[in-house]
Amino acid sequence: MNITIGVDVGGTNIVCGATDEAGRVLRKLKRSTEAHTGHEAVLGKIADMVRQIREDLGEDYEATSVGVGVPGLVDPRAGVSKFAGNLKWRDIPVVSLLEQQIGLPVFIDNDVRMYIYGEAVAGAGRGYEHVLGITIGTGIAAAIVNGGELYYGHKAMAGEIGHVRMDGVDEDCACGLSGCLETVASASGMVRQAKKLLREGRASVLNDWFPGDELERLSAADLSKAMDAGDALASEIIVRAGELNGRALAAAAMVLSPDVIVVGGGGALAGERLLAPLRDELYRLLLPDFREELKVVTAEQNDDAGIIGSSLYAAHRSKSI
Amino acid sequence: MNITIGVDVGGTNIVCGATDEAGRVLRKLKRSTEAHTGHEAVLGKIADMVRQIREDLGEDYEATSVGVGVPGLVDPRAGVSKFAGNLKWRDIPVVSLLEQQIGLPVFIDNDVRMYIYGEAVAGAGRGYEHVLGITIGTGIAAAIVNGGELYYGHKAMAGEIGHVRMDGVDEDCACGLSGCLETVASASGMVRQAKKLLREGRASVLNDWFPGDELERLSAADLSKAMDAGDALASEIIVRAGELNGRALAAAAMVLSPDVIVVGGGGALAGERLLAPLRDELYRLLLPDFREELKVVTAEQNDDAGIIGSSLYAAHRSKSI
Repeated sequence: MNITIGVDVGGTNIVCGATDEAGRVLRKLKRSTEAHTGHEAVLGKIADMVRQIREDLGEDYEATSVGVGVPGLVDPRAGVSKFAGNLKWRDIPVVSLLEQQIGLPVFIDNDVRMYIYGEAVAGAGRGYEHVLGITIGTGIAAAIVNGGELYYGHKAMAGEIGHVRMDGVDEDCACGLSGCLETVASASGMVRQAKKLLREGRASVLNDWFPGDELERLSAADLSKAMDAGDALASEIIVRAGELNGRALAAAAMVLSPDVIVVGGGGALAGERLLAPLRDELYRLLLPDFREELKVVTAEQNDDAGIIGSSLYAAHRSKSI
Repeated sequence: MNITIGVDVGGTNIVCGATDEAGRVLRKLKRSTEAHTGHEAVLGKIADMVRQIREDLGEDYEATSVGVGVPGLVDPRAGVSKFAGNLKWRDIPVVSLLEQQIGLPVFIDNDVRMYIYGEAVAGAGRGYEHVLGITIGTGIAAAIVNGGELYYGHKAMAGEIGHVRMDGVDEDCACGLSGCLETVASASGMVRQAKKLLREGRASVLNDWFPGDELERLSAADLSKAMDAGDALASEIIVRAGELNGRALAAAAMVLSPDVIVVGGGGALAGERLLAPLRDELYRLLLPDFREELKVVTAEQNDDAGIIGSSLYAAHRSKSI
């Protein structure tokens, strides 16, 4: 049986998984990235993981190619990671270095595109021709899949919806701009907002849950819990994040007219707390013809979408060569 | 010599022109639309104009297909004008009705897509892979051309940038929403703003130029003239329109990463008066990587872009059948 292998390289963990042609995960491994060990060590670890998975699956399974999703700026044609801040990579020829070690065709792309590709082909976007996907996590990014093909744009830079300037937002962003969507509407942005407001003395159950220095441990999941406990501050932050995402998506949707918007990433784990205000704001701002037609769904494979997408992307790319 | 014929159907005039494969206009005709006569009469007129052009060009030129750009909502696959407000058309099977009369393959699409297609293939966007075009006229609309192919999205509704909600704008729009970009940043929107502010008693040289009821005759070109005469009101309106267009384009550009933005339509005739603030605001809001790469140009064939685009589109579509 032919399989492909998908790798999702994050700042914290590397996940590596084999899937069949339908994107079903047959076997999966996870190891810590340890980015400080340098790109050669990290790529060596990836090659080891791929080797391990092939061994574990045995001779009945024939791996044909490997897809690797890397954060940051990627040149998928050249096979190069142009810049990945949390890995401290710059201009790393990932494809050639990995192909030498693995002996299979390797394809790389940006992790968000891999994730959304998987959702478009084998997840929540399955069966739709025009898919607009957004991942709400540490940052916010989008990817577009039309008729099964990822859209890249100039220098493969398409998808930077997280840096669209939002009115009423004035936080400085790491990118150098200010008021970017992701400064307040990403999972990290929500946590940052909460910490700031709590330090300013805002009343919240979170003051009891995270007294003093423990506030550093606050996560987006804690905000969801606080909202469920009726906390006004948590609710305000999550609802606002939902609305801002809805607003940015409305602008993108009117230009692109997707069939469906897939919402994924860690932030999507907030579920309806975030999605209800997102949907309300999105539909409020859409032209009637769009409002009636456009669907909004959450990612199906939130945990495995990265490896499934990378694996299916490798299968797709190796067919088109 | 093989030629194709492009038709641009507007609420006021129909323009019909024959072009060679490079988009050079060989012959052109213009007649008033007289939409009140009904769609059969208008389509009959188009067939007449096509006949006339073929006759005028003589036997050395062989027309192979006809492209027709129609305002409003078009289903290019079915060949149907779904809705064109200023023509009072709804679900008119333009392609089949015209093919019966003309005896050549006919292709239709939305007039903005035709215009931008022409600019992308044979105008200011020539040589770029990813073109984002915007027309600033009665309304504001966008079209996307990637690798020589128009992007349509769900139900061919992509491109509605004119209805993106802009902060600080609260005008009601004919579409039913409010705060839409085109309510203040289109050519008509600028004129509407000027009339409103003048009626509210704002000081301006336009009060002298258009006393009393003559204000009705105010055009976007008059605003440009007033701005050149140092008029603060006209300048404020045009600069704001430029900035708002720049802002909407920045959001679209970060999601799409085009190589080039082509600005066309009657509003583009304001030239640098509008384009300088558009560019300033656009570049201010772009991520550095985009700022360094993205070009902004004005349409080359402003007058003939509609017929050139329709003609080249027909040539392209008939090849792909």
